[in-house]
Amino acid sequence: MTPKIARFLAEQQPATPCLVLDVDRVEGNFRALRDALPLAQIYYAVKANPAHPILERLVGLGSRFDAASFEEVEACLRAGARPEAVSFGNTIKKVSAIRRAFAAGVSMYAFDSVEELEKLAQHAPGSRVYCRILVENAGADWPLSRKFGTTVETARNLMLRAGELGLDPYGLSFHVGSQQTSTASYEAAIGRVAMLFTDLREAGVNLRMLNLGGGFPTRYRDEVPGIDAFGNAIMHAMTEAFGNALPEMVIEPGRFIVADAGVVSAEVVLVSRRSEEQPVRWVYLDIGRFGGLAETEGEAIRYRITTPHDGGTTGPVAIAGPTCDGADIMYERSNYRLPMALTCGDRVELHSTGAYVTTYASQAFNGFAPLAEHYI
Amino acid sequence: MTPKIARFLAEQQPATPCLVLDVDRVEGNFRALRDALPLAQIYYAVKANPAHPILERLVGLGSRFDAASFEEVEACLRAGARPEAVSFGNTIKKVSAIRRAFAAGVSMYAFDSVEELEKLAQHAPGSRVYCRILVENAGADWPLSRKFGTTVETARNLMLRAGELGLDPYGLSFHVGSQQTSTASYEAAIGRVAMLFTDLREAGVNLRMLNLGGGFPTRYRDEVPGIDAFGNAIMHAMTEAFGNALPEMVIEPGRFIVADAGVVSAEVVLVSRRSEEQPVRWVYLDIGRFGGLAETEGEAIRYRITTPHDGGTTGPVAIAGPTCDGADIMYERSNYRLPMALTCGDRVELHSTGAYVTTYASQAFNGFAPLAEHYI
Repeated sequence: MTPKIARFLAEQQPATPCLVLDVDRVEGNFRALRDALPLAQIYYAVKANPAHPILERLVGLGSRFDAASFEEVEACLRAGARPEAVSFGNTIKKVSAIRRAFAAGVSMYAFDSVEELEKLAQHAPGSRVYCRILVENAGADWPLSRKFGTTVETARNLMLRAGELGLDPYGLSFHVGSQQTSTASYEAAIGRVAMLFTDLREAGVNLRMLNLGGGFPTRYRDEVPGIDAFGNAIMHAMTEAFGNALPEMVIEPGRFIVADAGVVSAEVVLVSRRSEEQPVRWVYLDIGRFGGLAETEGEAIRYRITTPHDGGTTGPVAIAGPTCDGADIMYERSNYRLPMALTCGDRVELHSTGAYVTTYASQAFNGFAPLAEHYI
Repeated sequence: MTPKIARFLAEQQPATPCLVLDVDRVEGNFRALRDALPLAQIYYAVKANPAHPILERLVGLGSRFDAASFEEVEACLRAGARPEAVSFGNTIKKVSAIRRAFAAGVSMYAFDSVEELEKLAQHAPGSRVYCRILVENAGADWPLSRKFGTTVETARNLMLRAGELGLDPYGLSFHVGSQQTSTASYEAAIGRVAMLFTDLREAGVNLRMLNLGGGFPTRYRDEVPGIDAFGNAIMHAMTEAFGNALPEMVIEPGRFIVADAGVVSAEVVLVSRRSEEQPVRWVYLDIGRFGGLAETEGEAIRYRITTPHDGGTTGPVAIAGPTCDGADIMYERSNYRLPMALTCGDRVELHSTGAYVTTYASQAFNGFAPLAEHYI
């Protein structure tokens, strides 16, 4: 938690649940990533947190943007981004969304199927397109692989086809999974797609761009490698694979830029035991899986939690949300421990919750409004 | 799909994704359940769908209401419900919510721990309280058991304590899990809690009410037993357990009342194959797990899907939502088949989506607005 957030929470005591996010930390993370990978162009993954103050700060820093929908394209433009600085990175786009993005000046699009390519040729003619390749997601806490990407063989045919359709066969992309803690996954993926660059050059198509996706991890409850380790591993692999004929490099960080800039302040609604013999206490908060903490599904993302009683004796807990839904349990098997003194009405903090929280929140499940947001 | 919904979709062609819900069907379901269990008082589980036209219709039919939050209490009162007809059925309540509900005249509260009981004694003095007991959820497609309920032994102590604290020890409740397809689960639970009625009577506490929860199933893709089967099984078990000294019976149906009254109309955004060798097509819709279809988590609830090409040759599909999230997959292992002719831009219908869809929808994940709602 940054000193600015600590001060805001102490002075304002904002109603819970809420997210408090320090935009200066966003800038710090952006600069750290740029320093670690100076040759890469950063396209911020807007879906991680599309709040206007974040986008505006990133526009000022020269960031580009990876949009998942036309609504996200619009949010970037409203924040001052030039349309050339926006990539429409979702491989699944409505025709109406492609048309509107193209009309707004967006000229860079992702795809992973011939069907999508044909939609792009028709509704965004002449645009730069890049094909997403399916790679291993081992090492990622929030893997993505089954839904997106195609094989290297299919990608080859699709890039040839892109040219025939009057599109600009710009490059390739992959995604190693979100909250990826292994640098080796990037190295393996780079080696894999680099061969396709060579192969397509021989077939007469000169790709110019490699999009390495995002996935760079944030420190949650457990330690993760620093961003420099990823920068070094990636540059090493790029040089191995491409020598000094490096293509343009694109990265699409979301979590890394905003997660640790935010803290969710929540209230303990109830601390109880199933029965007197059970040592595990159930701690119910006023935010849960349907109030924004969707990434606790399967206990995938394990947030660090602090309380007013830290330092005192702790005991094992299960942690759940405030709704009547049995699926609204955050942690039951991840060995969380919280102070024995914790009680109803206490305020607790969930750290590094600046990414993938606010927009996930259900609009009104069980009648609860989405969490409030404070950008400071 | 009711004829009224079919006509509305054909004539209005509303923008997708949207829910169209026939309020007459809600009335029909309410009446069918009342006929199947005439001795039970129906408390509609507002969380299933809190839309004003639904609540208003149910108020007119004499329904009572099971609210999960103070916001849901308010929604009931706005629709014309008397506060005495509202039960605050969430066992996890903020002190502020208890206070506001009590001030509004709500006098019936659930709990399952001594901590919650003490909150109720302090902030809703003299109220009728009922204790939720943990029972088996086998047979439920959406089980609830780990988060709620206490043991019979603890419940006994809690009901004695309720009287000491000046509360009215009104009854017991259980929940056999949502979309419960086995009548035996109700029978087993009734037998279990009935013994506690006797036991407490001997200890000087006369419980007056048994809350059987909800869970009555809707027909989704697969057949389920009719509501009369549940009515018969429950009445048989009640008579076995209580003879002719039946306590007041409360049921809290949500899904059964509203699910099959609603249809989600969605658009196919993309149909593609991973590679030419793969027979499975990926069908991407403009609604997914984060757009309202949260109950497809783990492929638990399997909606029936119709398309404009029904009757033609079908092939295996995986079905996913429109976001960039790899977890936004509805069905991959449930052997769905859709017509080979299905293509981008087609409108499809997801049936029996009137329950647990609208409020679950994320407020803006990936920039997508929650689905529109039409009550007709």
